Amino acid sequence: MSKDFGNFDSILIIGLGLIGGSLALSLKEEGFTGTIYGYDLSKERIQTAQELNAIDKGFSKLEEIPWDKIDLVILATPVRTFEKIAKQIKPFLNSSTVVSDVGSVKGDLIENLSNILKPNTFIGIHPIAGTEKEGIENAVVGLFKGAKVIITPTKESKDAQRLKKLWEDLGSKVEVMNPHTHDFVFASVSHLPHAVAFALVDALIKLSKETGIDLFSYPGGGFKDFTRIAASSPTVWKDIFIENKKDVIHAIDEFTKSLQELKKYIQEENQEKLIELLSESREKRLSLDKS
Amino acid sequence: MSKDFGNFDSILIIGLGLIGGSLALSLKEEGFTGTIYGYDLSKERIQTAQELNAIDKGFSKLEEIPWDKIDLVILATPVRTFEKIAKQIKPFLNSSTVVSDVGSVKGDLIENLSNILKPNTFIGIHPIAGTEKEGIENAVVGLFKGAKVIITPTKESKDAQRLKKLWEDLGSKVEVMNPHTHDFVFASVSHLPHAVAFALVDALIKLSKETGIDLFSYPGGGFKDFTRIAASSPTVWKDIFIENKKDVIHAIDEFTKSLQELKKYIQEENQEKLIELLSESREKRLSLDKS
Repeated sequence: MSKDFGNFDSILIIGLGLIGGSLALSLKEEGFTGTIYGYDLSKERIQTAQELNAIDKGFSKLEEIPWDKIDLVILATPVRTFEKIAKQIKPFLNSSTVVSDVGSVKGDLIENLSNILKPNTFIGIHPIAGTEKEGIENAVVGLFKGAKVIITPTKESKDAQRLKKLWEDLGSKVEVMNPHTHDFVFASVSHLPHAVAFALVDALIKLSKETGIDLFSYPGGGFKDFTRIAASSPTVWKDIFIENKKDVIHAIDEFTKSLQELKKYIQEENQEKLIELLSESREKRLSLDKS
Repeated sequence: MSKDFGNFDSILIIGLGLIGGSLALSLKEEGFTGTIYGYDLSKERIQTAQELNAIDKGFSKLEEIPWDKIDLVILATPVRTFEKIAKQIKPFLNSSTVVSDVGSVKGDLIENLSNILKPNTFIGIHPIAGTEKEGIENAVVGLFKGAKVIITPTKESKDAQRLKKLWEDLGSKVEVMNPHTHDFVFASVSHLPHAVAFALVDALIKLSKETGIDLFSYPGGGFKDFTRIAASSPTVWKDIFIENKKDVIHAIDEFTKSLQELKKYIQEENQEKLIELLSESREKRLSLDKS
């Protein structure tokens, strides 16, 4: 099937950060021939987006946007801003305009956004791609190429099919998932590791203060790789943690249990149990490299 | 100063695994002209070491080793075997033979080994290098080149100077440290991250079982990089955790406090405190990339 990007003509990207910027650049790179509009509160970011040729035209006021032309709006701001923005744009939308996002939390948020925006359709998208960097100046052309992209439609629809096609034409592997399953899965494989990385660096800051030894001058032994994701955006992650609170806290609790179990075996010098726990983790982790 | 590898003539490496094998290969690569003997319980590993041209001669029985020629013994087995091996080799040692190691735990272990081996000198070495792989077949030529190597002598001595020279001639940056400081530092920057990575994979195994969703089929979002070190050797790490129990448990407790604090802020939706904790960790982590 030839590339048609779901037959959307004019796309408005709200939030010109790393993901919004990478999306705009990737659309152009992959041959999207429609118009890309950008909206951001910061005039500086709009200017950068224009200089990078990511967007055709940028706006910092909602009322100046040519809404009659726009058939797809993509929210690319931190997830805790979505409901507020949905309420703000609602009065401007055409009846056929589809609203989507690129956020890391789905679940209840999808339902809330659908309720705010109806009769317009909201369809959730989560591209499993990104870097620990921030800002449109760090945008990456082709960021979504080969990446897994989760789509969480609440019902079958032509618009969901169109959106799926748009992401497939960007080179992504699109997978359909229930919004609540999504939140559990990513609380475990992404939000938990981020929480752990932030907490690990925090603990080392405190241990350094406590002893007067600058632990950060010994970045060997896996620590540097391990905590790369602790350099991720505080605003983005504060929003993800709060918005996906229930699943994130469940994942933190389950992880804490595993760590306490490991600690207990160390305390007891239980060699057999330690080998068992470490071997099981090792085998599981090694199996990932094969896939 | 020209390369003399501390003027050691014949080195015996006990334990032909990843580190022992990499050390032997690197000595030859860097121009060590003396003899390298290898000792291992496994005849298969000895054969591989000989095929790789890592050692000149290998032994699986202590009494067959030409002890009169050996002026340096390096322990390269898991740390919990050191005391037993020290007792076994003691009767064979020349009065001038220096004993050293490449283990990740120092502290009390250094004192115990010194007591077992006296009047021979024991000098602790910890090269901050390695991979999550195991075995001499994964040995890396030049593994220690540019790597930080910690030396933990309990007093100034000519032998400590010679050993320092040997590692400098391998291209390492040698740093002197108190053995107890060493254990605190590496409990924090290396043993804790490994414990956390093992526990994280363990938690995901349990969450997968609990829900019937295979979380390991979603390795995006930083999880794969983050848990690379969970593929490290269970035997090596069981030994490190037990041998450095006190410092490892202190580090786990400090980390658990940080994670519980983060959890509390998420629970309370305390945006200000979340931004504060996340920003502090981010800035600290970013500063590492600059150094």
